[in-house]
Amino acid sequence: MFNISATYTDLYQLRMSQAYFKNNKHEQTAVFDYYFRKNPFEGGYTIFAGLEDLLQKLKTLKFTRDDLNFLKTQNFPEDFLNYLKEFRFHGKIFSVMEGDIVFPNRPILRVEATLIEAQLIETILLNLLNFQSLIATKACRMRWIAGNRALLDFGLRRAQGPGGYYASRAAFIGGFNGTSNVIAGENFNIPISGTMAHSFVQSYDNELEAFRDFALQLPKQCVLLVDTYNTLKYGVPNAITVAKEMEARGERLYAIRLDSGDLAYFAKESRKLLDAAGLEYVKIAASNQLDEYVIKSLQEQNAPIDIYGVGTNLVIGKPNGALDGVYKLAVSNGKPRIKISENLIKITLPHAKQVYRVTDKNGTWIGADVISLKTENHIETMHHPFDPFKQMHIGDLKQEPLLKEVMSNGEIKIKIRTVAEIAEYSRKRFEQLPLEYKRFYNPHQYKIGISSLLKKEQETLIKSHKN
Amino acid sequence: MFNISATYTDLYQLRMSQAYFKNNKHEQTAVFDYYFRKNPFEGGYTIFAGLEDLLQKLKTLKFTRDDLNFLKTQNFPEDFLNYLKEFRFHGKIFSVMEGDIVFPNRPILRVEATLIEAQLIETILLNLLNFQSLIATKACRMRWIAGNRALLDFGLRRAQGPGGYYASRAAFIGGFNGTSNVIAGENFNIPISGTMAHSFVQSYDNELEAFRDFALQLPKQCVLLVDTYNTLKYGVPNAITVAKEMEARGERLYAIRLDSGDLAYFAKESRKLLDAAGLEYVKIAASNQLDEYVIKSLQEQNAPIDIYGVGTNLVIGKPNGALDGVYKLAVSNGKPRIKISENLIKITLPHAKQVYRVTDKNGTWIGADVISLKTENHIETMHHPFDPFKQMHIGDLKQEPLLKEVMSNGEIKIKIRTVAEIAEYSRKRFEQLPLEYKRFYNPHQYKIGISSLLKKEQETLIKSHKN
Repeated sequence: MFNISATYTDLYQLRMSQAYFKNNKHEQTAVFDYYFRKNPFEGGYTIFAGLEDLLQKLKTLKFTRDDLNFLKTQNFPEDFLNYLKEFRFHGKIFSVMEGDIVFPNRPILRVEATLIEAQLIETILLNLLNFQSLIATKACRMRWIAGNRALLDFGLRRAQGPGGYYASRAAFIGGFNGTSNVIAGENFNIPISGTMAHSFVQSYDNELEAFRDFALQLPKQCVLLVDTYNTLKYGVPNAITVAKEMEARGERLYAIRLDSGDLAYFAKESRKLLDAAGLEYVKIAASNQLDEYVIKSLQEQNAPIDIYGVGTNLVIGKPNGALDGVYKLAVSNGKPRIKISENLIKITLPHAKQVYRVTDKNGTWIGADVISLKTENHIETMHHPFDPFKQMHIGDLKQEPLLKEVMSNGEIKIKIRTVAEIAEYSRKRFEQLPLEYKRFYNPHQYKIGISSLLKKEQETLIKSHKN
Repeated sequence: MFNISATYTDLYQLRMSQAYFKNNKHEQTAVFDYYFRKNPFEGGYTIFAGLEDLLQKLKTLKFTRDDLNFLKTQNFPEDFLNYLKEFRFHGKIFSVMEGDIVFPNRPILRVEATLIEAQLIETILLNLLNFQSLIATKACRMRWIAGNRALLDFGLRRAQGPGGYYASRAAFIGGFNGTSNVIAGENFNIPISGTMAHSFVQSYDNELEAFRDFALQLPKQCVLLVDTYNTLKYGVPNAITVAKEMEARGERLYAIRLDSGDLAYFAKESRKLLDAAGLEYVKIAASNQLDEYVIKSLQEQNAPIDIYGVGTNLVIGKPNGALDGVYKLAVSNGKPRIKISENLIKITLPHAKQVYRVTDKNGTWIGADVISLKTENHIETMHHPFDPFKQMHIGDLKQEPLLKEVMSNGEIKIKIRTVAEIAEYSRKRFEQLPLEYKRFYNPHQYKIGISSLLKKEQETLIKSHKN
């Protein structure tokens, strides 16, 4: 659906590239780190999403003839435009696998490329990874609380324009069962689902007739929306009438849907009516301003809801709306680089780095990842940033390198998975995350250890900047 | 950039359409209203945006061969798929002009079409109008408080995926001066702007050299980012050195940019250093987590900032993230329709309607729009919904119909304007909005009057549903 060309970027990437090109710095090598500073939703984890999508876009990213004609009107010099005409991304990318569980302030992805190529992919990389990771995380929070109940994404109408397309993909990775978004289903091979709106019922002179016509045409997976007029007085009784007619035809009504009012109350009362009519098998779907907190509350009240339809709060990642991912220079022209701001926490880590997830002898994640130089293969001791005088020996623990080569010379080096495969991988990784990082209120934060070698390099660089 | 086909929709639109088609109801006429229930950002107004974009998409909307092949896998019957193959929108649309100032709970747009065509455009209509109106409104709030200072959209990297593309368009309509988003500039003819990132400075061994190289290549509109290491100790002095070198070449440094720390403090101190060097003409640009409240606060502190770069909070429309626009059936098969929920405020208004903006003898908007039947040409008395016993005589006031025919038989009936023309129209209309609706804290809410005829129709329909 989206043909993203290389002008899907910020102008300053092109202005800097122009300056690099004209000053003949553009082919210097550079290393950039992608990471974020805070888990969204006051949570204890983030689901990393968008990678395989990004890799496919990078593989074919180029400036079209229209792009170049436009840039000509923006006073770019001719020789630079000729360079852009041939621009392709030829770099290497090392990354955490899509669907994995990640945490703040450690590299999630590392780009090694010429300075100009690394710069020209920054915006699209941030745009796709930040958003999909935000939504996958939101979805995962709802999946965690919803247990085995079905979760469906109904958000396209309130999504941020075509952002809704990627929201549906990310929601599926985070654990949703399907989406109402047809084009996302079509292009990402995600199950789609959908039933009826109030307008369907209103377009008939009475509700029973509307239900009857719908059930006749859609005998499988038929879901009747029961709250257009009066849920318990008309809606559910009419649905029961139609369910009985379906039984007489050897069919089964799949579910009723509630979309207004107190969902716990209406679900309980509807369940009673359905059960009293011998329709224990008819499921109850509910929608209307759901998020992980409302779902939690409905379940605490034992609301007999089998299917949650989630819209706005999912697809816009409310309340955050954005993951604060950044893309920071770690090496250029062979030299380690650092950015020092007033805020000491924002000091970047120099050099090309690796991140290890460490597991104890029982197979449990120990609660801290280690950041090291990429050249270190096994870390003996890690340096805790919150207690710089303390070292922790981890040489005897299992260390899994998280950043793997996913692109080289602009070619994808991993097997591209289906979205369902990514979702399944995410589910398995999430199972490994200890419970204290999953809770909604004041969750534990997964720590960072820095290898002694990397710590020394950072300190040396800070000192040299002070002088 | 985006080839949106007709599967950019929710599955239930297709399931309902299938039922309409098979029950031979699909060619019944229908009228739907688009409106929202609450101004975003606790504000007193909304800027209506996205319309002309939507009209252009509707004009060519169809199911592609790939779409139809996909739908075949989803158990749609053959005859319905054949209908979809020929599907085009042939309806009429009456709408408020894009860029106008609108308020909650009155029709912004009315669709008159066959039931099936009206239903099949619902999702794309809501998706594009809700989001662009949200962002245009956010932008307008910043424009109002920023006065004549420049406002630039820097948000693409944190936008909700390709939502950022439309965010840039909407921000310009709401009053921004330009965007960093190159593809939005290219396709919507919006001014683009951009300078340098920290990585540019870091890629050099020292800041002065980086500034020098950049200024040599970009002597016009050169903006130097001064906070990579230490703003006042190195950044601004280095920028001054380069500005003096530029002067010697007959050039002028355009601006410096601050992107961290206390922007008011750093702007004031930087201004002093620049002025002391005789560089009064060098502007100060600032960015970092700006929104209308931060801008207001900076201005209250007399921070000498000339250019605001706004990112995340603009393009994701924080904190709301979504406008709650809905699309409700008002007429089907020639009969007025109504939806009655538990919540009396959510009762819809039946019939095809018109909305008038009423102006008093001094040319001032009177503080209430009137909703009438579309067949009423001039309203004598309006019925106030908050005081149902009160009537207000408005027969002698100027009444401007807001819903104009913008599409008929699927063809666009208005002259498509440039985004700049829409922005200019919006600015003029916004000038007409009295101040009490513009303030950020507890603004006045623009009221609704209902014509006596329409009120009577609604009451009749409620009564008939009660029986």
